[in-house]
Amino acid sequence: MSEMNATSGRLQHLSLGEEIVSRINELAAISETLEHLARIFLTREHRAAADLILSWMRSAGMRAHLDAVGNVCGRYEGAREGLPCLMLGSHYDTVRDAGEWDGPLGLISAISCVADLNRRGLRLPFAIEVTGFADEEGVRYASTLLGSRAVAGTFDESVLNVRDADGISMREALKSFGLDPDHIGAAARARRELLAYLELHIEQGPVLEQENLAVGVVTAIAGATRLAARLSGMAGHAGTVPMAMRRDALTGAAECIGAIEEFCRTDTGGLVGTVGYIHAMPGATNVIPGEVSFTIDIRAPTDAHRKLAVTDIVRRIEAIARRRRLSLQLDVTHENRTVPCAPWLKAQVADAIAAEGFRAFELPSGAGHDGMAMIDIADVGMIFVRCRGGISHHPDEHVELADADAGARVLLRLIENFRPKDAAG
Amino acid sequence: MSEMNATSGRLQHLSLGEEIVSRINELAAISETLEHLARIFLTREHRAAADLILSWMRSAGMRAHLDAVGNVCGRYEGAREGLPCLMLGSHYDTVRDAGEWDGPLGLISAISCVADLNRRGLRLPFAIEVTGFADEEGVRYASTLLGSRAVAGTFDESVLNVRDADGISMREALKSFGLDPDHIGAAARARRELLAYLELHIEQGPVLEQENLAVGVVTAIAGATRLAARLSGMAGHAGTVPMAMRRDALTGAAECIGAIEEFCRTDTGGLVGTVGYIHAMPGATNVIPGEVSFTIDIRAPTDAHRKLAVTDIVRRIEAIARRRRLSLQLDVTHENRTVPCAPWLKAQVADAIAAEGFRAFELPSGAGHDGMAMIDIADVGMIFVRCRGGISHHPDEHVELADADAGARVLLRLIENFRPKDAAG
Repeated sequence: MSEMNATSGRLQHLSLGEEIVSRINELAAISETLEHLARIFLTREHRAAADLILSWMRSAGMRAHLDAVGNVCGRYEGAREGLPCLMLGSHYDTVRDAGEWDGPLGLISAISCVADLNRRGLRLPFAIEVTGFADEEGVRYASTLLGSRAVAGTFDESVLNVRDADGISMREALKSFGLDPDHIGAAARARRELLAYLELHIEQGPVLEQENLAVGVVTAIAGATRLAARLSGMAGHAGTVPMAMRRDALTGAAECIGAIEEFCRTDTGGLVGTVGYIHAMPGATNVIPGEVSFTIDIRAPTDAHRKLAVTDIVRRIEAIARRRRLSLQLDVTHENRTVPCAPWLKAQVADAIAAEGFRAFELPSGAGHDGMAMIDIADVGMIFVRCRGGISHHPDEHVELADADAGARVLLRLIENFRPKDAAG
Repeated sequence: MSEMNATSGRLQHLSLGEEIVSRINELAAISETLEHLARIFLTREHRAAADLILSWMRSAGMRAHLDAVGNVCGRYEGAREGLPCLMLGSHYDTVRDAGEWDGPLGLISAISCVADLNRRGLRLPFAIEVTGFADEEGVRYASTLLGSRAVAGTFDESVLNVRDADGISMREALKSFGLDPDHIGAAARARRELLAYLELHIEQGPVLEQENLAVGVVTAIAGATRLAARLSGMAGHAGTVPMAMRRDALTGAAECIGAIEEFCRTDTGGLVGTVGYIHAMPGATNVIPGEVSFTIDIRAPTDAHRKLAVTDIVRRIEAIARRRRLSLQLDVTHENRTVPCAPWLKAQVADAIAAEGFRAFELPSGAGHDGMAMIDIADVGMIFVRCRGGISHHPDEHVELADADAGARVLLRLIENFRPKDAAG
């Protein structure tokens, strides 16, 4: 009995969910340290994980290889060789002290679905490709979506010269991994090769749990605008300056934070605004803060909505600063466009969810995903799976086996019923 | 010609203000470094400053010595030897990167006033003592008012074992300075020896400047209550948690800061409240803060007013935390009683100010002063002198020569017209 048959034989006794959870655990054991899960781009453990995923792909009846940037690429042919593909994927790198599910759930679920088709000898009128993106989190080189950007042909080659915290350039790291940094371009795929890009991912938020649903239809990957604000007033002695004579930068910042919250809270279109960082100077108990820096992160399901909100919030902050005689510096430090999920793919995701007996609930993704890069060569669809407490990027990140199973069943049904855009009309 | 006579001869051509400003500059040259003024308790430069002040006191016709804690003590006898004294004083230590006026102005002005009496051969029906307190700021041993506490007999001897940043205990530092740490108690004075304690000091705030006045009558040294607050909510992804599901500790803290400001701003009794320090965790742009720590400093001219305000502010913060489902920890970290200036001394200060042609304007001191310790053995009075922009504890601290002169003239008139409490009725 060959190894492949032995594996297939063993797995036939498991549900999709059981197989997925078992592999999630197996992959999570491949980490920088035993105590904390960390699987960083182009490290030894990253390579070991890639080899394990390659073996799973081959067991599922796929041809599999590593591409020029370290993405794990598997292909399951359709009714005949060389047909355009439905591409499924997610990433296999992690943040530091990560959870086990962010990335791997989508990748492993896709492999399990293909394995199921393969066990049944089912060939579809299109190929299926599964891509395990090598770097989505951007931990090592402070640049996210490296894997999917290489596939989409939008990889910025200047990043090859960026060095990590240990002084190792990405160029050197690619060589150590066994790849040729001068051929990153070879990872790029053409639009005509792809019928769609479809990703299953944990929600990383609390909405599905609140709605008591295992899965959801993603409407869009929300764009984000990040701003850095600095308010300057006049430092002074906490005891000697009467309230009416103060130019307190922190009470000014507090009013701004309140205004941002109020503006987003009363919005009905899914707007979220966050001040995550604040620093008051000089920062002593008995000194009125003369200067305060803080960040603002604004996200919405459409670019138009977000841009309007940013304009409005900036106007409010300017008015607060003016009224309080504080000087204001406000800079946009980061801007990501919104990536809408294609309506025809949302419809097929919703149909698959309904066919599995769930309510097809729509929600935006506030977090970024590889679809943000893949949109440049394919229409994008996404399925969210509930995670406990909305917790992610944390060891407590958790998905129930029943929910992993539900997600995979939806994905499998979606694949089997998939109609390309033209056919879908 | 003796040195004393030479000095007296030179100074006769100077106004009180000119003499004071000249000595302020001379004393400011005695510093840890040339770039930044720092004269820290029991250092070499502290000792050099003490010696210079001793020489000024002797030139002014006083007997002068260092007491057991390093205070510079001068005595100008009255009509006969051994009479109770009017004690004048201020401190000669500084913060780091200090201004030249905080402390020295009051001390040098007092010496110049005595010198003037001495030049005129004037003896009063009471003695005058001038004390240069060795440590008011508390920079080295994180314990303030060490000099005046020793004089008031409330020095906490456990502080002798506290070590500075270099590991030198106060006990060792006193020995290096030439003092005997086992005799700190000898610095204590009895209530019967003092008719009053009177201090001239820069305002360290902007009120006199706002009122266009050179000098002011201090009503009280405001007490202070300091609290440490910690709000805990739930950290989360800035993109994935809808506004309505957040338990954001920073928006909660911002509402508390706004409530403190609003409460103090609308108070008509001189209440001030300051949040000087804030720290949001984890402190990343794209993470909702799960925990925020901040400090609160509340001051008012009476203890009753301050305590009522603290109770009210705490109640408001508790209500904000409850409504936002944040847990709250709130601890009082520091509490200083209010030291009211004695009405009979305020009246004499006001009379002296009026006699010098100024409006007798009353204001509280929001900053702490040696009177906070001296109140335990004497009634306390204070005169404030305007400082530019209200700036203090900063190299930009500045007093105009005309204002230094005005302050000294008020002090001199007050001394000459001084009537002890019993005589004042």
